[in-house]
Amino acid sequence: MLHGPNLNLLGSREVDIYGTLTLDDINRRLADKAGELGVHVRCQQSNHEGVLIDAIHQAAEWAAGIVINAGALTHTSIALRDALAAVRLPAIEVHLSNVYTREAFRHASVIAPVCIGQIAGLGPLSYTLALQALVERLRQKSSD
Amino acid sequence: MLHGPNLNLLGSREVDIYGTLTLDDINRRLADKAGELGVHVRCQQSNHEGVLIDAIHQAAEWAAGIVINAGALTHTSIALRDALAAVRLPAIEVHLSNVYTREAFRHASVIAPVCIGQIAGLGPLSYTLALQALVERLRQKSSD
Amino acid sequence: MLHGPNLNLLGSREVDIYGTLTLDDINRRLADKAGELGVHVRCQQSNHEGVLIDAIHQAAEWAAGIVINAGALTHTSIALRDALAAVRLPAIEVHLSNVYTREAFRHASVIAPVCIGQIAGLGPLSYTLALQALVERLRQKSSD
Amino acid sequence: MLHGPNLNLLGSREVDIYGTLTLDDINRRLADKAGELGVHVRCQQSNHEGVLIDAIHQAAEWAAGIVINAGALTHTSIALRDALAAVRLPAIEVHLSNVYTREAFRHASVIAPVCIGQIAGLGPLSYTLALQALVERLRQKSSD
Amino acid sequence: MLHGPNLNLLGSREVDIYGTLTLDDINRRLADKAGELGVHVRCQQSNHEGVLIDAIHQAAEWAAGIVINAGALTHTSIALRDALAAVRLPAIEVHLSNVYTREAFRHASVIAPVCIGQIAGLGPLSYTLALQALVERLRQKSSD
Amino acid sequence: MLHGPNLNLLGSREVDIYGTLTLDDINRRLADKAGELGVHVRCQQSNHEGVLIDAIHQAAEWAAGIVINAGALTHTSIALRDALAAVRLPAIEVHLSNVYTREAFRHASVIAPVCIGQIAGLGPLSYTLALQALVERLRQKSSD
Amino acid sequence: MLHGPNLNLLGSREVDIYGTLTLDDINRRLADKAGELGVHVRCQQSNHEGVLIDAIHQAAEWAAGIVINAGALTHTSIALRDALAAVRLPAIEVHLSNVYTREAFRHASVIAPVCIGQIAGLGPLSYTLALQALVERLRQKSSD
Amino acid sequence: MLHGPNLNLLGSREVDIYGTLTLDDINRRLADKAGELGVHVRCQQSNHEGVLIDAIHQAAEWAAGIVINAGALTHTSIALRDALAAVRLPAIEVHLSNVYTREAFRHASVIAPVCIGQIAGLGPLSYTLALQALVERLRQKSSD
Amino acid sequence: MLHGPNLNLLGSREVDIYGTLTLDDINRRLADKAGELGVHVRCQQSNHEGVLIDAIHQAAEWAAGIVINAGALTHTSIALRDALAAVRLPAIEVHLSNVYTREAFRHASVIAPVCIGQIAGLGPLSYTLALQALVERLRQKSSD
Amino acid sequence: MLHGPNLNLLGSREVDIYGTLTLDDINRRLADKAGELGVHVRCQQSNHEGVLIDAIHQAAEWAAGIVINAGALTHTSIALRDALAAVRLPAIEVHLSNVYTREAFRHASVIAPVCIGQIAGLGPLSYTLALQALVERLRQKSSD
Amino acid sequence: MLHGPNLNLLGSREVDIYGTLTLDDINRRLADKAGELGVHVRCQQSNHEGVLIDAIHQAAEWAAGIVINAGALTHTSIALRDALAAVRLPAIEVHLSNVYTREAFRHASVIAPVCIGQIAGLGPLSYTLALQALVERLRQKSSD
Amino acid sequence: MLHGPNLNLLGSREVDIYGTLTLDDINRRLADKAGELGVHVRCQQSNHEGVLIDAIHQAAEWAAGIVINAGALTHTSIALRDALAAVRLPAIEVHLSNVYTREAFRHASVIAPVCIGQIAGLGPLSYTLALQALVERLRQKSSD
Repeated sequence: MLHGPNLNLLGSREVDIYGTLTLDDINRRLADKAGELGVHVRCQQSNHEGVLIDAIHQAAEWAAGIVINAGALTHTSIALRDALAAVRLPAIEVHLSNVYTREAFRHASVIAPVCIGQIAGLGPLSYTLALQALVERLRQKSSD
Repeated sequence: MLHGPNLNLLGSREVDIYGTLTLDDINRRLADKAGELGVHVRCQQSNHEGVLIDAIHQAAEWAAGIVINAGALTHTSIALRDALAAVRLPAIEVHLSNVYTREAFRHASVIAPVCIGQIAGLGPLSYTLALQALVERLRQKSSD
Repeated sequence: MLHGPNLNLLGSREVDIYGTLTLDDINRRLADKAGELGVHVRCQQSNHEGVLIDAIHQAAEWAAGIVINAGALTHTSIALRDALAAVRLPAIEVHLSNVYTREAFRHASVIAPVCIGQIAGLGPLSYTLALQALVERLRQKSSD
Repeated sequence: MLHGPNLNLLGSREVDIYGTLTLDDINRRLADKAGELGVHVRCQQSNHEGVLIDAIHQAAEWAAGIVINAGALTHTSIALRDALAAVRLPAIEVHLSNVYTREAFRHASVIAPVCIGQIAGLGPLSYTLALQALVERLRQKSSD
Repeated sequence: MLHGPNLNLLGSREVDIYGTLTLDDINRRLADKAGELGVHVRCQQSNHEGVLIDAIHQAAEWAAGIVINAGALTHTSIALRDALAAVRLPAIEVHLSNVYTREAFRHASVIAPVCIGQIAGLGPLSYTLALQALVERLRQKSSD
Repeated sequence: MLHGPNLNLLGSREVDIYGTLTLDDINRRLADKAGELGVHVRCQQSNHEGVLIDAIHQAAEWAAGIVINAGALTHTSIALRDALAAVRLPAIEVHLSNVYTREAFRHASVIAPVCIGQIAGLGPLSYTLALQALVERLRQKSSD
Repeated sequence: MLHGPNLNLLGSREVDIYGTLTLDDINRRLADKAGELGVHVRCQQSNHEGVLIDAIHQAAEWAAGIVINAGALTHTSIALRDALAAVRLPAIEVHLSNVYTREAFRHASVIAPVCIGQIAGLGPLSYTLALQALVERLRQKSSD
Repeated sequence: MLHGPNLNLLGSREVDIYGTLTLDDINRRLADKAGELGVHVRCQQSNHEGVLIDAIHQAAEWAAGIVINAGALTHTSIALRDALAAVRLPAIEVHLSNVYTREAFRHASVIAPVCIGQIAGLGPLSYTLALQALVERLRQKSSD
Repeated sequence: MLHGPNLNLLGSREVDIYGTLTLDDINRRLADKAGELGVHVRCQQSNHEGVLIDAIHQAAEWAAGIVINAGALTHTSIALRDALAAVRLPAIEVHLSNVYTREAFRHASVIAPVCIGQIAGLGPLSYTLALQALVERLRQKSSD
Repeated sequence: MLHGPNLNLLGSREVDIYGTLTLDDINRRLADKAGELGVHVRCQQSNHEGVLIDAIHQAAEWAAGIVINAGALTHTSIALRDALAAVRLPAIEVHLSNVYTREAFRHASVIAPVCIGQIAGLGPLSYTLALQALVERLRQKSSD
Repeated sequence: MLHGPNLNLLGSREVDIYGTLTLDDINRRLADKAGELGVHVRCQQSNHEGVLIDAIHQAAEWAAGIVINAGALTHTSIALRDALAAVRLPAIEVHLSNVYTREAFRHASVIAPVCIGQIAGLGPLSYTLALQALVERLRQKSSD
Repeated sequence: MLHGPNLNLLGSREVDIYGTLTLDDINRRLADKAGELGVHVRCQQSNHEGVLIDAIHQAAEWAAGIVINAGALTHTSIALRDALAAVRLPAIEVHLSNVYTREAFRHASVIAPVCIGQIAGLGPLSYTLALQALVERLRQKSSD
């Protein structure tokens, strides 16, 4: 699970858009969900594009898939997109808020074409649903 | 649950994009999921924009929320958008395929700004996750 | 008098934009105004583009002019435009709200170039003024 | 009642677009209509944007509303728009011709978003209907 | 053979653009041509997008190909495009008039990329040539 | 019959797009068709825009109409368009491939507005149908 | 002869773009040329759009044609354009500098479509050639 | 100090955007600041573009620099831009409000490229800081 | 003097746009004017871009300036532009018709930025005035 | 005080655009100004977007406002914008050079809408004026 | 080796952009380099698009690859692009100057997508490096 | 030699686009080439924009030129561009793949205008040719 720039501030600021849950709360819910699903999840947040790219590269060593909320980098970072494309892990893009009710520059995602799907606007639920979906997809494939 | 134009053909055609499940299969899965969640779901498909608008108006009489895959109308129908906005039911937009890996005209959704969220690219799972999310959101609200 | 998609909901929803009058109230006012002006008016609402096109074709059989609030179809329906152009009846486009204070996609009207004029933003008054204008224009012409 | 640039030439030139009525004829009709409605109307024409802005500022001292045909300034003058917005009088934008059947640059109005409504394409009738609408709206408000 | 919105008015209106032949005349010519070619053709006209989509789906049950003049829907209906793509029948797009000498919004066709070819501007001949071409292509394929 | 740049290579290269017929094959088919129709056809291919313009000018001396596949010049050559417009011979634009399934820059034709019609995507059939259509149109006119 | 905003500064400033001749020098040359041609020319400069429009209206009372360098208003003033169109005098647009080697916003002229021609980039010669052309065109017409 | 259209209304209207200070208050603060800095400042407001251009031309006779809030003309007046460029006095563009949080058409300034700098969004402080900056820059230059 | 594509047809076709004078008539007038001015002029027309480029290169060997009506190539030929820029002879661009009253694609000239000026819309007069202007400019320069 | 990418090179390079002062000189002037104003200022420069975001987050712990010259990130970094919006400290955007006289991509600022104001083009003075403005604004607010 | 329009002027004109080497010098260097590499190179320059297309077609008869500097045709000639695509020889696009520091219309290359690579901005070195690269690539392939 | 984001993955992933050589292989080839040329080359790869900017700044201390493959940052990083411009070392931009056959957003390079040239599409050869070109250019300059 990768969290992009400014998501470390979750819960303490702009609660009207992002809700009152902190990033730790969300990570805990993800850990719980992972436990339920019998999988292991690692969470990392960074305000640095380079750190996120490094993390994606490292994920290729051990992870079976990626859930990513790239924050503002969603709309601009071709480098992040190339990283996701390069490691070829199935990835799901998530957003807490419904980006389509916000500024026009938040409507376009440069990483969407290299993800398998998107879940947006459902608050913290976006994350746990994405984890659930990723696991189901991976199990479906391996059972083929 | 509303299905837009051409979704009646699911499972029999373009299986490389949309998979082998028929619309009936998906509706059955939704009914099962609804049973699990203790809610009632009605499914309707139409190739007619007007029928879909009428259905949204009627939903306002009895339903607590809407899951909608508007198909091609997603990208052009302001009338559908206005219908969703008018009835003010929480709605979740779903897509079977990852629309961002397809033609550019499929990247924009005119109904997205009047939905609470979107789930795309996860195949039939998009539908059941949307139902699950809608129910959780409605329960969260009513418990406030 | 033709009413486009979602106008059947008038008065019960989004009263901040469209006011508290129902479509029946507006139709009654139009009938009263028609009585005053000594003309006959028929009102029809539909959420189906095809039904509106059929109605325009039928109007060519008996009506002398058309007042139309095409709702969301105003901005997208070339088919409606072609229908109006084909029957060559003088038509006036009306809108309840001032569309220019709303979303950018509501600023463009594809039917405007085939109407003789537009009246917008004046609430229910938009309708009765349009009827009055249409009758005056038709009398002016026939008196030439 | 404010008339923008070149409207002083009405009736003598380009009669195919604007008709044979002179500006004086239109002003007389407006005075008659005002008499009928029991209100007072002052008419002013200028080819100078600055004079029109000054007139809007002065209207704030005594008038209850503004009917304005800004002519060519409709499409470019943000200063006129700001003047209308600043005095906060209800204003109705009018046009003699159906601007949507003319050049593309006449389709956009920078003053439309600060007016309460628009009446276009109905010839001299545009003016008297606008006056009638303005008076009805003002009476409706004051009777609340 | 599918005819889109407003084509039912052919021959009676706008004869300068569309000629004096009625839709029945054209259908009769198509039937004659079909007779000559030893094939069967069914003609359907509708002002309803949904009806046209239904007809395309039904065509998949019995027809070997489609000739379509989608009228105004040519320029906007992604749903029609998706229907044609879904049934995977060879389709030829026809237009009576040369759309490139008309308004700019008539120059783009959203269905063109899912048809095998286009014939435009040749009046009623567009239809019979399209039928002839479709038959030749189908015979060519089946003889391979 | 005018063939634009690179069409001399037909049949020997890019057979997946253009088929295996050579330009000579197509010209022979055209000659056969011309024989059938009782008309005379001259075929010319050039990779030089100027030579094609000269040919159009010369056609005005003896020909009754033009069938043209301008190749890549279709999309850019205003000079070719002006030549066609200047000689005022009825012209039909043809393409072997369905240009709308190819790169975006192949979707626009600068010569389309000065032709009477277009036939595209039907392979060599595009040519013979165009000849047939041209002859029918010319006979129709002369019989008026 | 009408000179637009800032042309009163000619000769004293930005001599690298506009040369060292003052507006008086240019007016004198125009008077000399007018004498040669046996016609009368009146010159007026203003930094006020309204004054220029008034002057065009007045020109309709006595002048046979207009030479105009609208300065910066060339690129924005639809009101000036409408004034020129309304008085229907033949007008020639002139510019001292080659506007196409300057900023992009100077490449478009909103008055060009209502003038009979343009002369640009030839310095003071632009003016006298325009006067000469205007006189020749008027004599040609009157001699028809 | 030049104030553009509608700035005469400062303090009495739209106080949420522009604050409660009147133009006189601002001019008085500028005079005080000028006193402090040992310079002379003249303030002029006009709703007429032409008057502002004339004032810029006159400033070239006596002033060492210009502070200008061109109001709505900031976004459209190339004539004002040319006036500032022509007199070659150092000019600073000021705005009371942060124009970037307002409508998109207020984000572009046509005079910005001919000013030495901009100060925006700081309310009345924008003016006094601009005066201070202008004086410092002029003293810096003259001390070289 | 260089004439671009299709100008060889002058006088015989599209006389409503280009007038009844043939290219020979115009060349004769240019020769006469050249005689009057005491200069030598060579005229060349071609429908081939390459021939025009060769001619510009050759002009650099003997000519002092170029008058060019590049016809349709005006709007598209960067190669022609580069040729004019390379030989660095003063060039004047001429057009018979007022290109700004024609299609939008005729409003832009790619050669304008490398010419010293433009004369358009004045019919055959455009040519002789351009020659006159070129000669005056060259004499002015050589007399410096 | 935050300095964006490449500002560490100030004074040693591109002195024609940015002047000869080093970043240390500017920081010293800011410290002096802060002393004068009785406030504390911390200066940080980084070529890393992530470091700047971290610094903004940390500023929320102790600072009352931010002065920021984001350098090239001004035009592209939505992440920086989101950081400024999230911490909700009043921020002033500064630029040494007049960005509007430079490349078009430097005219747009993605952080401007979340700052209270901008100061640009005034060299090192931009910084000290911004500090002064920030302090005055904060004192004004706290004194309310 | 193909040289496009105006490259015959190399060395004698615009030496600031293109350097002092003539085309003959460059061809000689290429011949020398070819000698070094043990390959044969033929050089051809033309100002005629058609001649260049013919040359590409002929190259298919004997050459193993193409180095091309299409000059101004780089930015506009789809016909040249189609020729390169049709012959399917590996091609490398070269430019003497760094086209990205020049006018915007020189930034796009229509032939780039059908070449294997580009070398630009390195002066005459661009040519010899391209030849070297082409040979290495061909040898690499044939050694597979 | 600077390598941008994701280039550390070379050779192990997406070998169809980037080939099977690892970054170490390329660096070794560069070292060999440098040895041949008698120069010293340092190679650095980073996924962090800030690290690359720091590296460019440091290069100014000791290097004579830069070869850079900025990866995805090529298309978005103005900060990288400013860094290259600031240090004023001659730089050559390289790409392994032909970016013009890939997505549209890869066609534009923001660093191209501050480099002296580009080499793209030639695989690992792009790097060694760039080094060779850079050395030749530097030797040429120093020998002047």
